[in-house]
Amino acid sequence: MGLSAYVVANPKKPHVVKVKEEVEVFLQGNGVEVTPSGKLLVTIGGDGTILHNNRHFDKDIFAIGSKSSFLCQAKLEDWKEKLGKILAGYKVQHRIMLASELDGKRLPDALNEVCARNKEHRILMLGLEIGQKWHEFRADGVMFATPTGSPAYCYSCGGKEMGADANEYQAVAIAPFRREFEPVVVPAGVKCRLVVESECDADVVIDGQEVFPLKQKSVVKVWVSGKYAKFVIV
Amino acid sequence: MGLSAYVVANPKKPHVVKVKEEVEVFLQGNGVEVTPSGKLLVTIGGDGTILHNNRHFDKDIFAIGSKSSFLCQAKLEDWKEKLGKILAGYKVQHRIMLASELDGKRLPDALNEVCARNKEHRILMLGLEIGQKWHEFRADGVMFATPTGSPAYCYSCGGKEMGADANEYQAVAIAPFRREFEPVVVPAGVKCRLVVESECDADVVIDGQEVFPLKQKSVVKVWVSGKYAKFVIV
Repeated sequence: MGLSAYVVANPKKPHVVKVKEEVEVFLQGNGVEVTPSGKLLVTIGGDGTILHNNRHFDKDIFAIGSKSSFLCQAKLEDWKEKLGKILAGYKVQHRIMLASELDGKRLPDALNEVCARNKEHRILMLGLEIGQKWHEFRADGVMFATPTGSPAYCYSCGGKEMGADANEYQAVAIAPFRREFEPVVVPAGVKCRLVVESECDADVVIDGQEVFPLKQKSVVKVWVSGKYAKFVIV
Repeated sequence: MGLSAYVVANPKKPHVVKVKEEVEVFLQGNGVEVTPSGKLLVTIGGDGTILHNNRHFDKDIFAIGSKSSFLCQAKLEDWKEKLGKILAGYKVQHRIMLASELDGKRLPDALNEVCARNKEHRILMLGLEIGQKWHEFRADGVMFATPTGSPAYCYSCGGKEMGADANEYQAVAIAPFRREFEPVVVPAGVKCRLVVESECDADVVIDGQEVFPLKQKSVVKVWVSGKYAKFVIV
């Protein structure tokens, strides 16, 4: 049985909706069945389009995006050549994702990061347990970043870049008071538990997309989910 | 003519209201007239109490606060000794403040920093003119910090600490994408002009206290005001 694929585009970018049609015609012209149950997921838009759709589909990802993308394997200029190459067969790179829980409620898995951050310009008092070790500090927030997310917001906040297939994640404070918390690389088997000690107007933000309100004494738990994002190697 | 003084306390901290009465009794017992027109301003609370009151009074500041304060000259434990020492005479340290303008409207002077920052978890596209030089980058925001503010939020965001009596200020990006903007020390004579290029839900925040909403194409101008905060040297 041949390859089957499903194509999604960012509906907020009108120029990529046209590309979606071209990709579908191209796939069908190469004998690929285009169906929602397809094994390959072709996303068209940018990193945000991957992050949004990765949560909804357990498929192999081939992403077409702009030059500024970190994650997309192909650009709007060269997708035909790259997509053509993989139709006869491909390998995937498995990337860890982060699971999290807010006050006992499971949140969507994150491919880039789970972030807890203020939104009313007041510093948060935070407690953070990493494995057996307890940290207390004040900051604008804390982020837990996957290797995939490490060159993105994590890096902006002073975290380090990790190889995309690393099996560990990072805890990075956002603007920590007196720089009292330094980024920590956390092995995949170790869980983190964040407690918001202060009154706050703050949120948990998953992959910069989904937002869940935090309150005083909220507890956020983070761990490696065991699911993987599967990126087609081009 | 002898010294005259005025005493203010942070009304949100009940234990300092009692100290306010003690300070007033102490001053009067030492022949100091306590009046709103007094030359010396005694603030009781913490750094926030100084920042709040500095804008309303052009007086010499003697501040009583907690151990975690950056700015207070005395603590709740030793104020009597330190205040007693200066009653016969004192010198002041002059600290520069920043003036700013939002879309043509003058904002209150800042003793610590003028900050433009997002509040809806989306990165801002920013243009920043420092003197003749133009920078473009994406970030959670930008801060202009005085020497006085340099060990505070400025330092948390990667800026450097400056001597309290320095005659220059700093432009520091908050979580700049790919760390594309490095902190810049700006001479006192040079003006900065910040343009918000993206749609945004963001604010200008003065000294972490007063908040003014920003919109797309908002322009924030910042310069050294020419007024000084006058801190009593103890």
